[in-house]
Amino acid sequence: MAVEKLAATQYPVHELIQRRWSPRAFANRSVDPATLLSLLEAARWAPSCFNEQPWRYLVATRENPAEYERMLACLVEGNQLWAKQAPVLMLSVAKLAFAHNGQPNRHAYHDVGAASAYLTFEATAVGLYVHQMAGILVDRARETYAIPEGFEAVAGIALGYLGDPGTLPETLREREIMPSTRQPLESMVFGGHWGEKLALLK
Amino acid sequence: MAVEKLAATQYPVHELIQRRWSPRAFANRSVDPATLLSLLEAARWAPSCFNEQPWRYLVATRENPAEYERMLACLVEGNQLWAKQAPVLMLSVAKLAFAHNGQPNRHAYHDVGAASAYLTFEATAVGLYVHQMAGILVDRARETYAIPEGFEAVAGIALGYLGDPGTLPETLREREIMPSTRQPLESMVFGGHWGEKLALLK
Repeated sequence: MAVEKLAATQYPVHELIQRRWSPRAFANRSVDPATLLSLLEAARWAPSCFNEQPWRYLVATRENPAEYERMLACLVEGNQLWAKQAPVLMLSVAKLAFAHNGQPNRHAYHDVGAASAYLTFEATAVGLYVHQMAGILVDRARETYAIPEGFEAVAGIALGYLGDPGTLPETLREREIMPSTRQPLESMVFGGHWGEKLALLK
Repeated sequence: MAVEKLAATQYPVHELIQRRWSPRAFANRSVDPATLLSLLEAARWAPSCFNEQPWRYLVATRENPAEYERMLACLVEGNQLWAKQAPVLMLSVAKLAFAHNGQPNRHAYHDVGAASAYLTFEATAVGLYVHQMAGILVDRARETYAIPEGFEAVAGIALGYLGDPGTLPETLREREIMPSTRQPLESMVFGGHWGEKLALLK
């Protein structure tokens, strides 16, 4: 059966954040086009430096098997193993320079990360789950999609409805049901100096 | 009076995404500590490559004027002009290499962007507004907070309750009430090849 996971938070957070996790098992159920467009629309409204909107998304759904296979082949093998279950695959792409002056955009990746977070938030709101992957073949993606100079593939995205961990290869099954973990808030939030505990946390 | 803005979406999105924008006018109202901790907790649960969690946050509130001024001085002057109204300032910081092998983390900025997006959702859910700033003094931040090698200040964050645009310098007042804009979805989402319209959008 599909596994629900709730983040074991130190402080309360919105339920869409608490419910989100990155599964590898996806149900054999497609995502309807209107829903998928709402996810992309959510990404569109992320904030960005100079409102540059340096994110692009390449999208493949299982309804088009040839396109789907082309995108799957842009993932590293370890990710293909499980991502091939997901009804939708995407690649996020960063635009590396600013339109207004051609200078490098230090925040291009940062803003792509934000846009994909907005996409994920919308996904969670409609019962979908997203698993992003750093493990992609950047050069292969460039060749496959003719990604032009000045742009760069950033991450793979698998999304769909939650599936049964039992459908995963055995090596991945255990990870699927383990609780998500994070370092304590104290180690990522500082006050007046680096490493100094925030007064609010004392 | 404070201005509510709703994103003019092409496809429906969750109301927390539709309501979010980046104001410059903040009300003279502090953020209670429990609320602030929930925002940081939300950031903590963002996904990251290898679960590296490469985000750190330096936090200053107006309750500690000396700390607040030190952080304000890490913003470029154009941002200080309005950010000084916000009851809370933060700096996001990226950890540039992986803990497990010391290699550069290509997704460090990406994952900081995601974490700050999670922080922003939580803020919107509790009635707060967030304005991130690329315009920070990276070297000054490093000196002020003794940010160690291997980490880098990424963005400034001003947050608080929505304020009256009339309190802003005249040059910023007009921008504050203009609608937010984005390029059309068609220009950021592609199908089988770069620049090719996604079949779903046809």
